[in-house]
Amino acid sequence: MLTIAGGVTSPKGFSAGGVSCGIKRSGRPDLSILLSDGPAEAAGVFTTNLVRAAPVEIGIRRLRESATKRGILTVSGVANALTGAEGIADNEVLLAAAERQFGVPAASLLPACTGVIGPRLPVPKAVAALGALAAATGHERADAERAAHAILTTDTRSKEVAVRVRLAGGSVVRIGGMAKGSGMISPRLARAHATTLGFVTTDARVSADRLSTLLAHGVEGTFNMVDVDGDTSTNDTVYALANGAASGPSADDDPAFAEGLYAVLESLARQVAHDGEGATKLLTVHVRGARTLSDARAAARAVVSSTLVKAAIFGADPNVGRIACALGYSGARLDPDSLDVSIARPRQPVPLIVDGRPAPGLDNGGGRRVRDLLRQLEEVPLEIDLNRGRASATAWGCDLSYAYVQINAAYRT
Amino acid sequence: MLTIAGGVTSPKGFSAGGVSCGIKRSGRPDLSILLSDGPAEAAGVFTTNLVRAAPVEIGIRRLRESATKRGILTVSGVANALTGAEGIADNEVLLAAAERQFGVPAASLLPACTGVIGPRLPVPKAVAALGALAAATGHERADAERAAHAILTTDTRSKEVAVRVRLAGGSVVRIGGMAKGSGMISPRLARAHATTLGFVTTDARVSADRLSTLLAHGVEGTFNMVDVDGDTSTNDTVYALANGAASGPSADDDPAFAEGLYAVLESLARQVAHDGEGATKLLTVHVRGARTLSDARAAARAVVSSTLVKAAIFGADPNVGRIACALGYSGARLDPDSLDVSIARPRQPVPLIVDGRPAPGLDNGGGRRVRDLLRQLEEVPLEIDLNRGRASATAWGCDLSYAYVQINAAYRT
Repeated sequence: MLTIAGGVTSPKGFSAGGVSCGIKRSGRPDLSILLSDGPAEAAGVFTTNLVRAAPVEIGIRRLRESATKRGILTVSGVANALTGAEGIADNEVLLAAAERQFGVPAASLLPACTGVIGPRLPVPKAVAALGALAAATGHERADAERAAHAILTTDTRSKEVAVRVRLAGGSVVRIGGMAKGSGMISPRLARAHATTLGFVTTDARVSADRLSTLLAHGVEGTFNMVDVDGDTSTNDTVYALANGAASGPSADDDPAFAEGLYAVLESLARQVAHDGEGATKLLTVHVRGARTLSDARAAARAVVSSTLVKAAIFGADPNVGRIACALGYSGARLDPDSLDVSIARPRQPVPLIVDGRPAPGLDNGGGRRVRDLLRQLEEVPLEIDLNRGRASATAWGCDLSYAYVQINAAYRT
Repeated sequence: MLTIAGGVTSPKGFSAGGVSCGIKRSGRPDLSILLSDGPAEAAGVFTTNLVRAAPVEIGIRRLRESATKRGILTVSGVANALTGAEGIADNEVLLAAAERQFGVPAASLLPACTGVIGPRLPVPKAVAALGALAAATGHERADAERAAHAILTTDTRSKEVAVRVRLAGGSVVRIGGMAKGSGMISPRLARAHATTLGFVTTDARVSADRLSTLLAHGVEGTFNMVDVDGDTSTNDTVYALANGAASGPSADDDPAFAEGLYAVLESLARQVAHDGEGATKLLTVHVRGARTLSDARAAARAVVSSTLVKAAIFGADPNVGRIACALGYSGARLDPDSLDVSIARPRQPVPLIVDGRPAPGLDNGGGRRVRDLLRQLEEVPLEIDLNRGRASATAWGCDLSYAYVQINAAYRT
């Protein structure tokens, strides 16, 4: 597997585009399309929030009706949630207009929305911009970039990734992806949550069933291990489209393909965490020595989600007790006297907790060296060993800053 | 039941006191005692965090050995957590010295600590101050106030309450309480968490078994329904002492006593929420129409714990979608199309969500009137009807402010 520069248009036979249709007052792009030249096998995982946005309801239904799709139409700026039957009708009208505009079959586009919960979808604005969107859609890398920008809300940067995978038989396929996510992030997709959107394209030949399995499995260890604020959105959606445009045999049972798809999801998840609202630092928590995978995930998520750990990381405060405290309430089985925690710097790991006690120098408000190190690091990689078994997991998050409060105290204004 | 001015010394036969022993650099009081003149029936509920502070371990063990106790010795400024066997030995030494100082039997004092996790308990400092503590201990209201101040950490004010209850037979008893709690608050006592300490005294005659049952039951609906930051502390403890100093029959089966005890716990829980770190507003969420009590509690807790709801309340932003979103992931059974949410102002309730839709004027970034109202209110009382059944519950929390981040980014410095 090779990471390449690119995004959702890196696999063959995919085009993308993004324009501004006037929903965002800022004038930033807010309408985007992702299209496969021909029919693609499709899969999706969705929020587990009981209050589901209209596009989630439609996406679930359309995938149940048929797993062959042509693309994804995304509106950013409004969530189209809490809008009832009218919200669903609004989105259906917009999708039908887009299907006509792009010359694809009825019900072949999947919808996604992200933004403020409550307002109705401004259908006329979006419909009026479809011609411009079609004109701005293409197969180039710049087109993928425009689409990746048009799905953002409070994000500070777009999130893209592409990999090139050599299958067992020797043929080469590509997998691309884009994502958005900045606040209301604590996805539990499939099972999942938070407004996180992720779209994956591939020119490999994969059955819808296999794609669905790989996507659900991959999301568990990637998107669902990201936590920015513990709030599970009404709109979380990750879609995957496989159009088979690369010639070659089925990738269904190819481990290299599975690995490539996982890598794309992991890269996107990491980018989402790094761009958490107000984040100044990426927090990566790797837990090992857990009794089960579920214990490892619970422990990693608890640390990355702890408001107090996040605030301490923002303040570069080596307040290691808060890490132990979060592990203690995580639900993971552990022995408080055999916890080990360190900052996993290559070649120079820095111990924080050893055998369940603060590392020397950290027990009494000390730790100037660790404090200086935390100040410098843009990514804080915590390594935790529960010393109880062999399971491991990684979770991604970010610090809690004044900017997070500012952004969310006045998001709509 | 009558609420009276007072605290833990309002019931007969209880003395209290607090002094500074030099643990807090600020010089604020950090060592406190609560004593019953004679033997008292005792009960306790403790954090469910697997990483338990030394005083929690000792408190659990001492109550298991005997339910007859004489008082509670609290140290604030250090949690005595993550300190292993030495931490337990440290606390035992301090308790033994205090038992000698106050002339009470060995193992008759219960311990509590709150503060930074990691550092060892400064036993010599605390022991050296026991004489001064004894001199400063008395039965007056001012003594209870001093004790209530000495258990605080980042709290901005002490939390006290007292009630007078007339039992069925006509005799009168008193119940008093004090608490601390400001950050790391998301108690799941008995089951419970967050550094929340609560101490309840009563001169009623109650058996230890009954006291334990009433305490565990009461904490479920009060302390365990408070959430400041979702972090469950290593040190949470609520103790109750009943010394029977008021003459009269047993209050074991007296509903007025049970009601009085619950009212004391609820008042303390509310005071803890109101003094949440950095809080500018108290958030009270009352859920009704739930199918079960457990659904009602889950729904109320989810709203009060939502970082996004808390930030919106701080910003006086009527972002009602965030409330619906939190209800959606709460785990409570609900129908998104029949949610009703309002600000429960006496005589003038203000609708926020009606039949699962934003109330008129709130759907499109509007709501200047609601915004003005939110700005004025020091307490925001949300009333939520799930319209699915008859169960109800209340949760208490606070808004998320810049000050919360500031306090927790540099708590130790």
